[in-house]
Amino acid sequence: MDNERFKKQMEFALEIDKEKNILRQTHLSSHGRRENDAEHAWHMAIMIYLLKEYANQEIDLAKTMMMALLHDVVEIDAGDTYAYDTAGLATQREREEKAADRIFGMLPDDQGEEFRALFEEFEAYETPESRFAHVMDNLQPLMLNNSNGGGDWKEHGVAKSQIYKRNAKTHTGSEEIWKYIQRMVQENIDKGSVKDE
Amino acid sequence: MDNERFKKQMEFALEIDKEKNILRQTHLSSHGRRENDAEHAWHMAIMIYLLKEYANQEIDLAKTMMMALLHDVVEIDAGDTYAYDTAGLATQREREEKAADRIFGMLPDDQGEEFRALFEEFEAYETPESRFAHVMDNLQPLMLNNSNGGGDWKEHGVAKSQIYKRNAKTHTGSEEIWKYIQRMVQENIDKGSVKDE
Repeated sequence: MDNERFKKQMEFALEIDKEKNILRQTHLSSHGRRENDAEHAWHMAIMIYLLKEYANQEIDLAKTMMMALLHDVVEIDAGDTYAYDTAGLATQREREEKAADRIFGMLPDDQGEEFRALFEEFEAYETPESRFAHVMDNLQPLMLNNSNGGGDWKEHGVAKSQIYKRNAKTHTGSEEIWKYIQRMVQENIDKGSVKDE
Repeated sequence: MDNERFKKQMEFALEIDKEKNILRQTHLSSHGRRENDAEHAWHMAIMIYLLKEYANQEIDLAKTMMMALLHDVVEIDAGDTYAYDTAGLATQREREEKAADRIFGMLPDDQGEEFRALFEEFEAYETPESRFAHVMDNLQPLMLNNSNGGGDWKEHGVAKSQIYKRNAKTHTGSEEIWKYIQRMVQENIDKGSVKDE
């Protein structure tokens, strides 16, 4: 074992523990507390494996799962930016790139580059893996919120147009799941949880 | 899309959200709150990918990660059994098998069988994937506890022999990581956090 290499790997492994303290706007099912980033990523990775048959294109499963597991580690420094927070979204990219420099920079060079590349690939939203990971990044909170009667949408006064904008490329990852999401949104409009605008 | 199949998959995806409420004895780094099962599984899956070069045998990465992500879902019904709780460990198997029947039984038959098989393979501790997943199941809480000055060991009065018993097969997954764990335990004996017996 190269002790210096292993030390860096373990320092990274310990550092990312902090992701468990980054809270999202989404609430757990059964009207639970707010979810954190690590829980969200765990859920996404399982759903990637569970729902892989609905991906439009063939995906490298381990790569897609790792992309999901890692995609929010930058929020350890940059914080969570709510999907419908316009001001926060404007500075998000810069804050997250700086965080990626520091956090992936803790790793041995080869793995720092590999993990950074996975993060950038997720952000770029162009490969089959990134597209399918994004489907789950959107579907997972929609599922929880729907199970809670749309409470998070009501709290933030979210409109259909905002959900559709956020999901503008969901169909590139999974046509079938995008159809399901559209049905879910319509049901929540009918129930008054999402604004029809 | 087969709507009945997708409905079962989504019901399973929502059901496992409950894993985020199952608390472990381990505390987060920086003397944080207690960790939950979903966070632990997220951390394990990343560590499997990060530390795969130390596996004794070649592993199927996606399979090992999914095994880690899923291995504690039975605790939604069966609860967490602390590694050093002798009474709890005696009934653990029966409680967890019953939980596996119910939770994996929610899935379409093919996936119910596949996920149940992954869980049983983890428990059986005989394949390269199961062995390496178990290395992370042990290393991850040791890492957190070590970072907190061994607080969890002190609280429960844990002895070296208990840690070694729990890690009796860790060397079958990774000789190198087992050597690292032995050094970590010795350091905690020297600091008085683990009993030398």
